[in-house]
Amino acid sequence: MDDLKNKLVSMLKDDLAEIEKALSKNLDPYFDIVSKVAGHILFSGGKRLRPLLLILCARLCNHSGENLPYFSTVPEYVHAATLLHDDLIDEAKLRHNKPVANSVWGNSIAVLTGDFLLARSLAISAQIGNLKIVEVIAEVTQKMSEGEIFQLYKKGNIDLTEEEYFEIIKRKTAILFEGSCKVGAMMAKASMNHETNLSTYGFNLGLAFQMADDLLDYTSDTKTLGKNIGTDLKEGKLTLPVIIALKNATPSDSSVMKKIIKDNNFSDYDFNILVELLNRYEGISYTSNKAYEYILKAKEAISMFPMSKTKEILLMLADYVLARKM
Amino acid sequence: MDDLKNKLVSMLKDDLAEIEKALSKNLDPYFDIVSKVAGHILFSGGKRLRPLLLILCARLCNHSGENLPYFSTVPEYVHAATLLHDDLIDEAKLRHNKPVANSVWGNSIAVLTGDFLLARSLAISAQIGNLKIVEVIAEVTQKMSEGEIFQLYKKGNIDLTEEEYFEIIKRKTAILFEGSCKVGAMMAKASMNHETNLSTYGFNLGLAFQMADDLLDYTSDTKTLGKNIGTDLKEGKLTLPVIIALKNATPSDSSVMKKIIKDNNFSDYDFNILVELLNRYEGISYTSNKAYEYILKAKEAISMFPMSKTKEILLMLADYVLARKM
Repeated sequence: MDDLKNKLVSMLKDDLAEIEKALSKNLDPYFDIVSKVAGHILFSGGKRLRPLLLILCARLCNHSGENLPYFSTVPEYVHAATLLHDDLIDEAKLRHNKPVANSVWGNSIAVLTGDFLLARSLAISAQIGNLKIVEVIAEVTQKMSEGEIFQLYKKGNIDLTEEEYFEIIKRKTAILFEGSCKVGAMMAKASMNHETNLSTYGFNLGLAFQMADDLLDYTSDTKTLGKNIGTDLKEGKLTLPVIIALKNATPSDSSVMKKIIKDNNFSDYDFNILVELLNRYEGISYTSNKAYEYILKAKEAISMFPMSKTKEILLMLADYVLARKM
Repeated sequence: MDDLKNKLVSMLKDDLAEIEKALSKNLDPYFDIVSKVAGHILFSGGKRLRPLLLILCARLCNHSGENLPYFSTVPEYVHAATLLHDDLIDEAKLRHNKPVANSVWGNSIAVLTGDFLLARSLAISAQIGNLKIVEVIAEVTQKMSEGEIFQLYKKGNIDLTEEEYFEIIKRKTAILFEGSCKVGAMMAKASMNHETNLSTYGFNLGLAFQMADDLLDYTSDTKTLGKNIGTDLKEGKLTLPVIIALKNATPSDSSVMKKIIKDNNFSDYDFNILVELLNRYEGISYTSNKAYEYILKAKEAISMFPMSKTKEILLMLADYVLARKM
C-alpha cells in the first residue's frame, strides 16, 4: 500500500506542485485575513484528489494542459468550503466540553471563509468561458448542501437505511468526484461518450472513497488515522458497516449495538465490542466488498481509453482509494 | 412616509406577487426539509428590494419581461443566504443568555441552508445563458463574504474609521443592490452606458439603504423597528453615527461614549445618554446628510432615461429608502 502511494506521489509530483501553487495564487482575496483563514484549511495536508481528477481526465482526453492547474482549484475550493462548514457541524457535539466563546469566533470565521471559497470557485469556473461548466459546479454544490442537510436531519437516527446511506455519500462525496472528472473532460472538449464515461469513473470512485473512509473509522487506529476512531458514531452518523450489522444481528446483539451507538460517550471497551459485532455480522466485509465493486465499475468505465501513462494513473488511483490507510 | 410606502406597494403589487411565487417555486429542493428551512427565512416579510431592482432596471431598458420574476430570485437567494449566515454570527453574543443546544442545531441548519441558497442562485443565474451574468453574481458573493469577514475582524474595534465603515457597507449591501440593477440591464441587453448608469443607481441606493438602516438602530423605537434598538452596538458593530460622534466629541464626552460602547449590557439610561451625544456631536445628522447625498447620486445616475412609470418607481424607491421607518 505505501508502495502504491509513493509511486503515485512520485508520478504526480509535478502536477501536485502546480496544484499547490495555483491553490495559493488563486485565492486572491482583498483582505489579508481571508487568505490567512482560507490558507489554514487549504494547506493542511489535503490529498488534492479532486484537482488531480480534473487534470488527469482532461489530459486523458488530449487537453494540452497549460491552464489545467489554474482551473483545477475549482473543485478543491468547493471541497475546502464544505469541510469548513462540516467542521462547524461536527463541532456541535463537542461544544459541551469546550469553552463556547472560542468555538463561536471559530465558527463565524469558518462559515464566512467557506462562503468565500464557494464564491471563488464559481467565479473561477466562470472564467473557463463555458456556461455548461458553471452549471455543473453550481449543481454539484447545490446537491452537496442538500445532502448535508439530509445527513444532519438524519443524525442520530438509528433506523437509517442502506438506501439513505447511499443518498448521503452520493451527495457528500461522489458527485464532486464526478464533477471534477466531468469538468476535466468538458475542458478537453471530449466527446459526449468520453465525458459520460469519465463522469461514471469519478462517481464510482467517489462512492468507494467515502465507503473506505467510513470503514477506516472502525478498522484503523487513532495514530494512523490522525483523528479519533469511532468519531462518526459519536457524532450520530450511522455508516454502512453499522447499518448492515444492525440488519443482520440477532435481536439481543442488535440491542447491545444500539445501546452503545446511542451512548455518545461510549468507552473503548464498548467500542471494541461494537467492532467485533460489526465484523461478526458482516458489516465490515459487506462494506468492503461494496467498495470493491464500485472500484471495478470505475475501472470498467474507462476501459475504452487506450492505455497511456495517464490512464495507468487513473487505474492506480482507484486501487489507492480502496487500499488507503488514512 | 406611510403614504409613499403604500403607493409603492400598490404600484408594485403584481410584481411583488410574481416574485413571491417565483421565490417559492424556484427553491425546488430534493428534500422537503430544505424547502421548510429555506422557506422560513425567505418568507418572513422581506421587502424584495433586490428582485424589484432587477425587474425594474430590466424593464427600464425595454426588456419584454416574461422571465424576469423567475430570474429575480437570484439576488434574493443570495441575500437570504447572507442573512442566514449573518444570523449565526450575530447570535454569537447572545449565546451566553441562551441554551446552547438549541442554537447549535439552528446554526448548522442555517449554514447549510445558506449554502443551498447560494448554490441555487448561481445555478439559476447560469440558466440565463449569459456567462457575464454568472460572473457578476459570483463576484458579488465573493466580495460580500470578504466584507463579512472584514466586519467580523473589526468587531468591537472602537477605532473603526469612516473609510473602513464605507468598505463594510459597500460590500455588505451596496454591491448586491448594484449587481441586481446590473443584471437587470444585462438581461435587457442594455447599452454599456445604460448598464453603468443603472449600476451606479443601485450602488448608491445600497449605500444609502445601509446608512438609513444603521441610523434606525439609534433613532427608531423597538416596536416600530421590530427588533431591539442599540443592537448593532451590543454586537460590537460601530456604525457611522458613532464613528463621527466619537471623532467630534470632547475628550471627556468621548470617554463617556466609549465606556457605554464597551459595555455589552448597557442600560436604557446609558443608551439614551449615548443617543444624545450622537445628536450633539452630529453623528446622526452627518449620517443622515450622507445618505441623502447618495440618494441624490442614485437619482442623478438615471437622469438620462426618459420619464416613465418604471423610472418614476425607481425614483420613489430612492425616496422610500431614505424615509423608511423600519
